Amino acid sequence: MSLGVELHCRCILTESKHIGRHIAKVELIPANSHCEETEIIATLKNTGQEVCLDPEAPWVKKVIQKILSSKRR
Amino acid sequence: MSLGVELHCRCILTESKHIGRHIAKVELIPANSHCEETEIIATLKNTGQEVCLDPEAPWVKKVIQKILSSKRR
Repeated sequence: MSLGVELHCRCILTESKHIGRHIAKVELIPANSHCEETEIIATLKNTGQEVCLDPEAPWVKKVIQKILSSKRR
Repeated sequence: MSLGVELHCRCILTESKHIGRHIAKVELIPANSHCEETEIIATLKNTGQEVCLDPEAPWVKKVIQKILSSKRR
């Protein structure tokens, strides 16, 4: 029974296109006993589709910084 | 029909205790048309419980930086 946390890695490929403005939310999953890689999974605005992002990519870090610094709309 | 994105704010109170090491994953939800506040929701390791974190709190920013910088376990 998984308590809201996956029992394996969820990402195989990561999205290379800069999709920052299409992102509705971002999930940060630290490396754990089930997956050795930190994973970042974005949910897209229109489709609700989930897309894996590369934690090392500068544009991904910028998107996350922007979310954290933009307190209000 | 919500495509994986809430139609209202999900956070009322935020957790003030430094719970960084109990966090299994973190969700970052930028302010949007349904909720004017940026919201950060952590899922706890053992219980799978969801807890809201204050995007302005320094310890929260440190937790997120640590997740992003720790590529591998």
